[in-house]
Amino acid sequence: MHLHNRLFAEFFGTFWLVLGGVGSAKLAAAFPEVGIGLLGVSLAFGLTVLTMAYAVGHISGGHFNPAISIGLWFGGRFGFAELIPYIISQVAGACAASAVLMFILTNGPDGAAAVGNLASNGFGEASPGGYNMMAVIAMEVVMTAGFLMVIMGATDTGDTTTGGGTIKGRAPAGFAPIAIGLCLTLIHLISIPVSNTSVNPARSTGPALLSMDTVAMSQLWVFWAAPIAGAIIGALAYRLLLGSTQKD
Amino acid sequence: MHLHNRLFAEFFGTFWLVLGGVGSAKLAAAFPEVGIGLLGVSLAFGLTVLTMAYAVGHISGGHFNPAISIGLWFGGRFGFAELIPYIISQVAGACAASAVLMFILTNGPDGAAAVGNLASNGFGEASPGGYNMMAVIAMEVVMTAGFLMVIMGATDTGDTTTGGGTIKGRAPAGFAPIAIGLCLTLIHLISIPVSNTSVNPARSTGPALLSMDTVAMSQLWVFWAAPIAGAIIGALAYRLLLGSTQKD
Amino acid sequence: MHLHNRLFAEFFGTFWLVLGGVGSAKLAAAFPEVGIGLLGVSLAFGLTVLTMAYAVGHISGGHFNPAISIGLWFGGRFGFAELIPYIISQVAGACAASAVLMFILTNGPDGAAAVGNLASNGFGEASPGGYNMMAVIAMEVVMTAGFLMVIMGATDTGDTTTGGGTIKGRAPAGFAPIAIGLCLTLIHLISIPVSNTSVNPARSTGPALLSMDTVAMSQLWVFWAAPIAGAIIGALAYRLLLGSTQKD
Amino acid sequence: MHLHNRLFAEFFGTFWLVLGGVGSAKLAAAFPEVGIGLLGVSLAFGLTVLTMAYAVGHISGGHFNPAISIGLWFGGRFGFAELIPYIISQVAGACAASAVLMFILTNGPDGAAAVGNLASNGFGEASPGGYNMMAVIAMEVVMTAGFLMVIMGATDTGDTTTGGGTIKGRAPAGFAPIAIGLCLTLIHLISIPVSNTSVNPARSTGPALLSMDTVAMSQLWVFWAAPIAGAIIGALAYRLLLGSTQKD
Repeated sequence: MHLHNRLFAEFFGTFWLVLGGVGSAKLAAAFPEVGIGLLGVSLAFGLTVLTMAYAVGHISGGHFNPAISIGLWFGGRFGFAELIPYIISQVAGACAASAVLMFILTNGPDGAAAVGNLASNGFGEASPGGYNMMAVIAMEVVMTAGFLMVIMGATDTGDTTTGGGTIKGRAPAGFAPIAIGLCLTLIHLISIPVSNTSVNPARSTGPALLSMDTVAMSQLWVFWAAPIAGAIIGALAYRLLLGSTQKD
Repeated sequence: MHLHNRLFAEFFGTFWLVLGGVGSAKLAAAFPEVGIGLLGVSLAFGLTVLTMAYAVGHISGGHFNPAISIGLWFGGRFGFAELIPYIISQVAGACAASAVLMFILTNGPDGAAAVGNLASNGFGEASPGGYNMMAVIAMEVVMTAGFLMVIMGATDTGDTTTGGGTIKGRAPAGFAPIAIGLCLTLIHLISIPVSNTSVNPARSTGPALLSMDTVAMSQLWVFWAAPIAGAIIGALAYRLLLGSTQKD
Repeated sequence: MHLHNRLFAEFFGTFWLVLGGVGSAKLAAAFPEVGIGLLGVSLAFGLTVLTMAYAVGHISGGHFNPAISIGLWFGGRFGFAELIPYIISQVAGACAASAVLMFILTNGPDGAAAVGNLASNGFGEASPGGYNMMAVIAMEVVMTAGFLMVIMGATDTGDTTTGGGTIKGRAPAGFAPIAIGLCLTLIHLISIPVSNTSVNPARSTGPALLSMDTVAMSQLWVFWAAPIAGAIIGALAYRLLLGSTQKD
Repeated sequence: MHLHNRLFAEFFGTFWLVLGGVGSAKLAAAFPEVGIGLLGVSLAFGLTVLTMAYAVGHISGGHFNPAISIGLWFGGRFGFAELIPYIISQVAGACAASAVLMFILTNGPDGAAAVGNLASNGFGEASPGGYNMMAVIAMEVVMTAGFLMVIMGATDTGDTTTGGGTIKGRAPAGFAPIAIGLCLTLIHLISIPVSNTSVNPARSTGPALLSMDTVAMSQLWVFWAAPIAGAIIGALAYRLLLGSTQKD
């Protein structure tokens, strides 16, 4: 698979993640009487990853998230050579999705006023439930660490043949998109009230940049720093404490 | 498998899709106090496809949707010879399901008044959230494009043997109905408030025709044009940008 | 596997189905403010089948439902010799689950008054949404027919070797419990407001018998006749129209 | 796999279970207007197990629950030698998760007052729906028995080769985390109103100990005794009545 195929896959996957996750939050979460609520938004975020990981995971690995790419690099599963191009594609996909959403929202009954901060992430006054920066950082670090542990483990299908034969008994092949997608659903079920849930710097950057919300912009660094820190912790924990098969 | 078996499979699958999706919307979405809401309707639409794709996907491919059949033709996965018979079977299944639903609704406490527009799709005044035609077209095109990309990718199981051996590492076999069914759930979680979600001209045609709702009938062309345009875009994007294995 | 192992499997599976489905309906559906609603009940019914089909499906086939056993007999997948013992085990499991639920409800804050009709099925005044007998029969027949079609298809894994080799390309192995369990969820998402959803005579019989609700008892025949008729229709439709592999 | 790897896996898995399940209950269940309710909490508990079973199930077996470890020992699937270290790791993980949650809650708008009893389990006044001790014990025993039956069955993949060849037709490999995770979701859909759902002594112990709630502490014995009794019953029922393949 050529690099440009892989970068298109990351672009489309992250586009889908932000369009589906942020889109369901803005359009459907609080729809009168029959709104999908935070449960529906959590499901939508997870299903964007589940669906695109089955669709293009075999092309790019299906990261759709700079923190995952960086974490997998620390985990020994992804090379540094493609790290920067992957992250650029991911952020571009998130921005494109934010632009599409703004077009649709602007053509709704409330016009441009419906855009708001495009469901950006935030702490303090910008936290949905009013949690402070410490709580938000703790949540984002722990959630992303767990996310990377699940990703490292569920993709640890261990086709490693050694001199003594094939090591078997690792994670079953084919199920990783289910585990990883539903892990993102789980993470949202827990943490939307705290940080509006990032665990993904691209997902935070697209809405903040496109909506030009000043609070979201000024807090954006937290949603790069905390998910990346958590991703590194989770990947190293899996690699060092749980005996991951290394592939590089 | 004979063509008539395949057409019966498409008929029953699309019947199930409209019966389950539109049925849950009309019967259960707004049931007092314990209604399933848009989240339940989204899940129902997705599960109709998940279940019937496992049931008859091995017979007909499990399209249940003219836009998918057309998209897969552009994607190089489906032959033109069966395109028109498939579409006729799909629309017939959607109409039959609409008739069954009207019978059940008419035997409920509100009689024929409960039928309404049978959860037809629409824009402007007919959009659940009041979105205009531009928003509805944008949403339907983008959603169907993503849908086709997921379908093309999740079924890209790549049993292609070349002179040099078998190309492996494509999408895992057996999981496509989960990916595709839950993709339809995701699409509904995002877009019901905008267009009542079509991405499927048969799903739009059955309720509009049977309920004889004049607004739904006059807007029906949008729910043929936009999903088909999106399907072609998504299938070509997968084929050209993501290096799909061609099978025709 | 001995017959007594198979009958225990059907007993436990049907016990779990009624305990989980009816239990969630009685205990959690309308819990103040955070109740699971009809969506939660639908999910619970489906998950009872998904979980027990993975647990004991390899022992008994995982019917947990007299209509399924009868339908599979017509579909050529199940022998008449075990039909009556299966049905007796299923009804016994449903009655045992009803007894356990009554014990728990009676030890709640409302005592014996909480039992009511134990979420029995019904039409007319006993229909949750007030649908008449015609609507209820139509719904139960169509839902069970679709259910059997999904069951016949999803288990049509086609390990049939003929003189000319192995016929492949049928339903993928291992996924049937997901397809069948989530099909029961789908059926509930559509039809709880109409008939409180049976599609399973054992599920109707346990609550009606144990609660000794006179309306439920007098209407019970409908929830044997309609699901069985639908099951036969669905199984024959799959077998005759969709080219099912016969196994008997 | 070394014992210390297995114990880390149990620690992280149980940490994730309590963080996700109790966390979603405390942070998101009753969030104004768009709260996830008991349905969302049920899904969260199940997804913690589904995700971590795919991630580390191949390392430790993925118990994350002392009752499961004890039940599997009775079921002939787990050795006594590792039983005590497993249970200690599980309880430690539950306590660590409780501590993280308390840190986050304390940094929210209500400060330390938000901690409460950390969603501990209880009966009588401490039961969410006011069920007495008999109801709670009955529920916990039956739910855990069903849970172990599902676990025993879904992992009964039967790679047993005898003198006469390989016994096949057992549970399909790879699906166990789905069956077991969604079984925990099902259990919560039924029993949160009764006991706040334990079926897991570690999940009960972490919140009770860390919150130092006196009622939760005084009732904690029930949530060790009942789940363990149920686990033993379920494992023995599967082994003795359903013809489980024994592996020790």
